[in-house]
Amino acid sequence: MRGRVFLVGAGPGDPELLTVKAARILREADVVLHDDLVSSAVLGNIPQTAVVRNVGKRCGHKQIRQEEIQFLMIGFASQGLRVVRLKSGDPMIFGRAGEEIEALRKAGVECEIVPGVTAALAAAASAQIPLTHRRLASSVVFLTGSHAEGSPKPDLRAIASSGATLVFYMPGHDYREISRMLTSAGWGGDTPCALVSRASQREQRVVVSSVDQLPAVQRVAAPAVVVVGPVIQLGDPRFLQQEVMEIAVAVGRDAGLGPNERVPISWGGAAR
Amino acid sequence: MRGRVFLVGAGPGDPELLTVKAARILREADVVLHDDLVSSAVLGNIPQTAVVRNVGKRCGHKQIRQEEIQFLMIGFASQGLRVVRLKSGDPMIFGRAGEEIEALRKAGVECEIVPGVTAALAAAASAQIPLTHRRLASSVVFLTGSHAEGSPKPDLRAIASSGATLVFYMPGHDYREISRMLTSAGWGGDTPCALVSRASQREQRVVVSSVDQLPAVQRVAAPAVVVVGPVIQLGDPRFLQQEVMEIAVAVGRDAGLGPNERVPISWGGAAR
Repeated sequence: MRGRVFLVGAGPGDPELLTVKAARILREADVVLHDDLVSSAVLGNIPQTAVVRNVGKRCGHKQIRQEEIQFLMIGFASQGLRVVRLKSGDPMIFGRAGEEIEALRKAGVECEIVPGVTAALAAAASAQIPLTHRRLASSVVFLTGSHAEGSPKPDLRAIASSGATLVFYMPGHDYREISRMLTSAGWGGDTPCALVSRASQREQRVVVSSVDQLPAVQRVAAPAVVVVGPVIQLGDPRFLQQEVMEIAVAVGRDAGLGPNERVPISWGGAAR
Repeated sequence: MRGRVFLVGAGPGDPELLTVKAARILREADVVLHDDLVSSAVLGNIPQTAVVRNVGKRCGHKQIRQEEIQFLMIGFASQGLRVVRLKSGDPMIFGRAGEEIEALRKAGVECEIVPGVTAALAAAASAQIPLTHRRLASSVVFLTGSHAEGSPKPDLRAIASSGATLVFYMPGHDYREISRMLTSAGWGGDTPCALVSRASQREQRVVVSSVDQLPAVQRVAAPAVVVVGPVIQLGDPRFLQQEVMEIAVAVGRDAGLGPNERVPISWGGAAR
């Protein structure tokens, strides 16, 4: 009997945002190899009988090499087991699925891809920010902040001039650097942006800011995305309101104010 | 009692690719207002007791105006009903959700967005084409072929030079025009592209071609996307194989050959 590998998107974290198919395949799994960023609530869907292993590469500290993950998948499948390779979001967006699929094909192991709700879509839903809009953005770009050595860097300047909404995956915590990159690529300093952390989860946080003000935003927990573009203005007014407070706190801290002293600040502008 | 509107992503067509949450909200719906492109299999999940209305705007023939859809949503919600606005794929990508959310907010109707698996992700999963890849593409762009008057046109030239994988939503049937647009924006004629129709559904079809050869591809049924970029080379070899036949048939037809006479053709190249 031959086993089979399912590359499954775990979605953004809320187990209700698994697809019906992903939930079923998890219930039937013999082995689950999952990334770090898969939420514990999603992992709670895995049956007790399954072998579960975290094969995440946390923050660049590689606890496990990509080749080892591929070796494990092939090894378990060769024993006739149903193996689920569970990836945060969707497997085909920044998930290194290409390499894993290639390895499985070479080994003659059958594989099936189950798509999932990628982080950008979860962030858009949570903050009620449409990623495209008839008047404001007719395209959307997903790119990542972390790059492998020798990998092609996205041409940010070309993306800026395309007028697309930008969704920055894995932005890390150096918001000053992101702000600098965006500015030097051609985004205006007053372009609105939203940092969405743990979309769909209980700890979800949305901070609305602007390219100029991004360095003043407090760190948020991973997984997070930064959404950049005029569509942010259409976001949930409750978050737009929250932004004012968030930035005010940060700027106040920089100005030596206590946590309960607020600096009034205008939308997308500088502290006055 | 106030009603509520749920803007729900129906995913690509396979009812198993609804999220668990979308499936639950559909089961609990009093009213469902759905787009044309939502599959009949997904509609089969709606309880008999719900009022169901197709509010699709088929191929530009507007059977119903956007304002009427908004009027209906608000009207039903004001009667205290649970209204589901069901959109193919994800509501925040080319779904005009921005306008609907704005109308609901103005009317004081509470709304919740439930993200879904957008067409690009379903196409990628079905054809086993990773949309990003460490060596080949560090970003991915979604854009649409149909534009409202006065809406911003995406700057295709900028997108071409960014090196992103391109996913073209709602490409229509004028593949010659798409090929021309891509070429004049700077994509090489030999850039691989894949036309994916009805991803995840029984009638799913994947045709792999190249920018130059796209005009020779036979029409596929909506919903479809065109994926453009070197990542296509990583796609499922069965589809890459199929492409050879598809193009051979098309070229053969142009050359006056019968349906069972094949013209041999090389990958991404011209007929020889």
